[in-house]
Amino acid sequence: MAEDNFTVTPWEVSGNVDYGRLVKKFGTEAITDKLYDRIKKYTKDLHFLLRRRIFFSHRDLNWVFDEYDKGNRFYLYTGRGPSGHTHLGHIVPWMLTKYLQEKFDAKLWFQMTDDEKFFFNPGLSIDECSRFAYENALDVIALGFDRKKTHIFTDFDYAKTMYREAAKVAKKLTFSTTKATFGFSNETNVGSIFYTSMQSVPAFLESVKAGKNIPCLIPHAIDQDPHFRVCRDIMPRLGYYKPAAIHCRFMPGLGEGGKMSASQPNTCIFTTDSPKDAENKIIRAFTGGRATIKEQKEKGGNPDICPVFQYWAMMFEQDDRKLQEIRRKCLAGELTCGDDKRMLAEKAMAFLVSHQEKREKARDKLKDYIVKD
Amino acid sequence: MAEDNFTVTPWEVSGNVDYGRLVKKFGTEAITDKLYDRIKKYTKDLHFLLRRRIFFSHRDLNWVFDEYDKGNRFYLYTGRGPSGHTHLGHIVPWMLTKYLQEKFDAKLWFQMTDDEKFFFNPGLSIDECSRFAYENALDVIALGFDRKKTHIFTDFDYAKTMYREAAKVAKKLTFSTTKATFGFSNETNVGSIFYTSMQSVPAFLESVKAGKNIPCLIPHAIDQDPHFRVCRDIMPRLGYYKPAAIHCRFMPGLGEGGKMSASQPNTCIFTTDSPKDAENKIIRAFTGGRATIKEQKEKGGNPDICPVFQYWAMMFEQDDRKLQEIRRKCLAGELTCGDDKRMLAEKAMAFLVSHQEKREKARDKLKDYIVKD
Repeated sequence: MAEDNFTVTPWEVSGNVDYGRLVKKFGTEAITDKLYDRIKKYTKDLHFLLRRRIFFSHRDLNWVFDEYDKGNRFYLYTGRGPSGHTHLGHIVPWMLTKYLQEKFDAKLWFQMTDDEKFFFNPGLSIDECSRFAYENALDVIALGFDRKKTHIFTDFDYAKTMYREAAKVAKKLTFSTTKATFGFSNETNVGSIFYTSMQSVPAFLESVKAGKNIPCLIPHAIDQDPHFRVCRDIMPRLGYYKPAAIHCRFMPGLGEGGKMSASQPNTCIFTTDSPKDAENKIIRAFTGGRATIKEQKEKGGNPDICPVFQYWAMMFEQDDRKLQEIRRKCLAGELTCGDDKRMLAEKAMAFLVSHQEKREKARDKLKDYIVKD
Repeated sequence: MAEDNFTVTPWEVSGNVDYGRLVKKFGTEAITDKLYDRIKKYTKDLHFLLRRRIFFSHRDLNWVFDEYDKGNRFYLYTGRGPSGHTHLGHIVPWMLTKYLQEKFDAKLWFQMTDDEKFFFNPGLSIDECSRFAYENALDVIALGFDRKKTHIFTDFDYAKTMYREAAKVAKKLTFSTTKATFGFSNETNVGSIFYTSMQSVPAFLESVKAGKNIPCLIPHAIDQDPHFRVCRDIMPRLGYYKPAAIHCRFMPGLGEGGKMSASQPNTCIFTTDSPKDAENKIIRAFTGGRATIKEQKEKGGNPDICPVFQYWAMMFEQDDRKLQEIRRKCLAGELTCGDDKRMLAEKAMAFLVSHQEKREKARDKLKDYIVKD
């Protein structure tokens, strides 16, 4: 088998991700047109992240809807590894999660994995991870999740609940499995080895709380699938349902290739960036444009390799007709990269101003969302 | 190197333990006469478990006293794996712990490792381990530990505090080390692999609470040393003192060879046994006696291989002169095994009646000793 030109693990995404190949490699299923249609039956419209196949893969999504049809309603689970401030790439799966919460009136468990980030990052302290966890929670709240139906927690501050449930998973999970799944070695620290047990808990926590089995649907970026593959193997052995999942692509960074990553702050827009900083980053972005304006006008740009176009598609232009128009003008050479970036920067700055205002207001609401032991 | 005829790990003690060899194998130090004398300088008398070399080995005991001399007082830490009811063998290290608490006016953290017992015993549930943890706590309280200076907790019910601190240890501990120390394999579950991190926490928990380094002394049966060997390697890397330890031998079972073990209930006296049951177990015990009374009278018995004599020595006869007299009469053939057992049974029954009364009263005191999150 040919070597892949990309790497996707829960801790590293690099190279040119071939999503079709990734579906095969991970053993997930591509979302078919029929399945998109089924979603639409429940939601009336299709969220732009679904229409545009940004969410493209799943596990057991048909099952979760079969159960729903029988009156066995699902809850949602997603999360965030708080190793720094939230960036735009993190928000993509949360947008769909919010939409699913609204359309299905679903409860949400939102896990801040401060323990994960502590275990896997030599330079991070628990206090730093915890601090970022609560900072990130402000972004979640700012997006407008239903405060009556949303529980946000950090693994450390909810550890009395979490450790007891994680222990049940840990007892069924061997080092051998974590080694095969994540490529761990004998030199891996035992916190990292244990960690998948913690990430598994919210996949059955609502069932624990309710005292009966409740289906769980996890919207997440596909790099986290290995954790849930392990989790799904263990759940039936604990008497719980396997969680279903719906997977999204990665938002690219503003450079050439690679996903948006906090470790490359110049090509990453944080929700805490000043609008001016965000504008500067966008203006300096890599694009699918030609070397000269003359050439651009003659041959047109290439939106398919252009992060600026991706940002329109994944976040800033939710109207399909308008998005098509941007694409058409780019391809036709009618839109220069400079103009395109300035348009995007305007949108991004407006988003940041509005988001940051909501984010500050969220500080007072934090206590309504956070669960602790 | 010759194969040892015994096995001592935190989960298995079998064969004829050669304690001299064990000290070399584990890399601990035998307690010298000079060190016993030093202890006596502080305590005025020497506890019978020290006088009789039942506590025979240590790590850094001189250091803990050096610090004490400088005014840097130590706290105590010991624990129990709650896989069943307490038996007499468990009580031996607790007796010395109580003595040390009194003599040095020391605070004690008492850890009930319900998570350990859950991880390592396929047949035990969390609820069973938790239930036994609180049952075992009654035995601890019944022994008369100072309620103002004693904190008892279970890992699961104190997990919010414990997991956060254990994570710091876990980040510094590799699978490789646990493999070398405990003989773990790729098939070991990740809870067991993580567990040493939890057992390490009380060795520095008082320092965390106080916000400054406080020496820790751990009285325990020597089979637990591998956990603390690992813990001691990691502590300086977290900025804490290495804990000191003082190690005791195992109380034998009532059969031939082997330590008292809850998995062999017929040769094990539980604190919850009825006095009648305990009497029956003692009457049926293996001894160092001869085949016939005639032979016993001629040749005398062998107290050195006799659990009945060990029970006198380790628990029921604290007066050295009286113990010597039992030994002399046994060796001289003046004491038959039957009489010896009846004497011991009387003492054991009296102990159980008194202990069980205190144990029941302890139910009301539990809340004064237990710390939970």
